[in-house]
Amino acid sequence: MTYCGGILVREGLVMFADTRTNAGVDNVSTFRKLHVFSDPNKRIMAIASSGNLSITQSVLSILTEGYTNPDTGEHETLMNAPTMFQAAQRVGHVIRNVHATEGKALEAADVTFDVSFLFGGQIMGERMRLFMIYPAGNFIECTTDTPYLQIGEHKYGKPVLDRAIIYDMDLYDALKVGLVSIDSTMRSNLSVGMPIDLLVVRRDICEAELVYRIEPGEPYFTDLRERWSAALRAAHIGIPRPPYGRV
Amino acid sequence: MTYCGGILVREGLVMFADTRTNAGVDNVSTFRKLHVFSDPNKRIMAIASSGNLSITQSVLSILTEGYTNPDTGEHETLMNAPTMFQAAQRVGHVIRNVHATEGKALEAADVTFDVSFLFGGQIMGERMRLFMIYPAGNFIECTTDTPYLQIGEHKYGKPVLDRAIIYDMDLYDALKVGLVSIDSTMRSNLSVGMPIDLLVVRRDICEAELVYRIEPGEPYFTDLRERWSAALRAAHIGIPRPPYGRV
Repeated sequence: MTYCGGILVREGLVMFADTRTNAGVDNVSTFRKLHVFSDPNKRIMAIASSGNLSITQSVLSILTEGYTNPDTGEHETLMNAPTMFQAAQRVGHVIRNVHATEGKALEAADVTFDVSFLFGGQIMGERMRLFMIYPAGNFIECTTDTPYLQIGEHKYGKPVLDRAIIYDMDLYDALKVGLVSIDSTMRSNLSVGMPIDLLVVRRDICEAELVYRIEPGEPYFTDLRERWSAALRAAHIGIPRPPYGRV
Repeated sequence: MTYCGGILVREGLVMFADTRTNAGVDNVSTFRKLHVFSDPNKRIMAIASSGNLSITQSVLSILTEGYTNPDTGEHETLMNAPTMFQAAQRVGHVIRNVHATEGKALEAADVTFDVSFLFGGQIMGERMRLFMIYPAGNFIECTTDTPYLQIGEHKYGKPVLDRAIIYDMDLYDALKVGLVSIDSTMRSNLSVGMPIDLLVVRRDICEAELVYRIEPGEPYFTDLRERWSAALRAAHIGIPRPPYGRV
C-alpha cells in the first residue's frame, strides 16, 4: 500500500509520499514514490505514485526517457511538455501505453492494473497546477474548493484534511496538516511507512523550496506525532459527556 | 454503506449504528441496523449489521423465529442460546444457512454475499462479550487490548478509536468517542448517515441502560460535532510549524 497527498494552496504546493512497498507482509521494502523533475526558474514538476511498482516505475522511466508521438514524430518527455495540462496528458498517455504493452500478461497472472499518480508543479508564466491521474489515463485537477488530492490508502488521513485544509492557509501549515494526515494513516495501516518524502514549492518560484526525507526517529515528526495524540485525547476530554441515559 | 461499532470497556458495552441504506445515490433510505434482544435481568443481546439488507434482515428474522437444529431436533433462537459464545455460533450458523439458500441466486445476479455483524451482550452469571461475525460465519471476540470492533465503513472513524479508547475508561466517555468516530465517518462518506442508534449496557446489569436514537439536529450531537471540529483545528494550530526549509 501507499499514501501520497498533494495540497495546493494560494502560497504554493506541498506533496508528500511514504516509501513502503510490500508484496505480502513478509516482503517489505523502501522505494521512493515522490519524484521531482526540475529546471530551476523554468519549470518544476513532481510525480507521486501508488500501485504496482513495476508499472509505476515503467511509467516514470518512459516519461523521463521520452517516446515518439506517432502523430507529430516529436520526442515527448515531461520536461519538454509545453504546458502542465499537456504534461498531465503525457502521464495519462504513457499509462495507457504501458497498459497496452503489459496489461494482458498482468491480467493472465491475476495482477490488477491499479496505478494512480499525483502530478503537480508549475511552468514559468503559467499557473501552478495539481492533477490526479487514474489507471485509465484520465485525470482530474485540484481546485480551490477542495485544495488537496490523495492516492493510495486515503481514508484514515482524510478527516483531518477535510477539516483543516483551506486554500488561504500558510504553506508550512499545509505541510504540517499533511504530516498529521500521514501520521493518522501510518498509525492505522502498517503498509504505509517511514521514511516520508516531502516537497514544498512556493508559487511562481519554479524551484523547490524544500525537498526533504523524514527518517524514522526524526525529532520534529516524532514531536508532531506525540503532540497530535495528546491534542486528540485532550480534544475529546473537553467535550461534555452525552446527557443521554444518566439521571 | 454502513458504519457500526461496539466498544467493550470495564464498565460495560456501547454499540452504535447509522441507519442509511442505499442502492445507488438516487435510492437512499433509513433502516434500523442495531437490534436489541432483551429479557430484563436475565439476558441482553444486540446485533448490528452491515452489508446487503435482504441478507441481514433474513439472518435477523431467522434468529428471532428460530430454526430446528438437525442434530438435536431442538428449536434454537438467540434468546434460548445457553451462552453468549453459542449465541454467536448461532449467528454464524444462520449466515451460512442463508448463504446456502440464497448464495447461488445472488451470485448469478452479481450480488456479493457481503454481510458482517457485531454481536454483543451478556447472559446473567456469564461475562459480557462482544463478537464480530464474518460473511463465512466465523467470528472473533473483542479483548481488552483493543476493546472495540467495527463493521462497514470503518476507516475514517478508526484513528480516534485507536487513540482514545482504553479498557478502563468511563462508559459514557466511550460512548462520546464512539460518537466522534461516527461524526468523522459521516463527514467523509455520504452513504453513512443519520439518525444514529445507540445502546449502552452496564456490566452485570443485563438490561439496557440506554436505547436512544439521535435524530438530525439533536442538540448534544450537533454541539459535539462543532466542538470536535473546533478542537481539531485548535490541535493542529498548537503544533509548531515544520522547521524544514525555512531560514
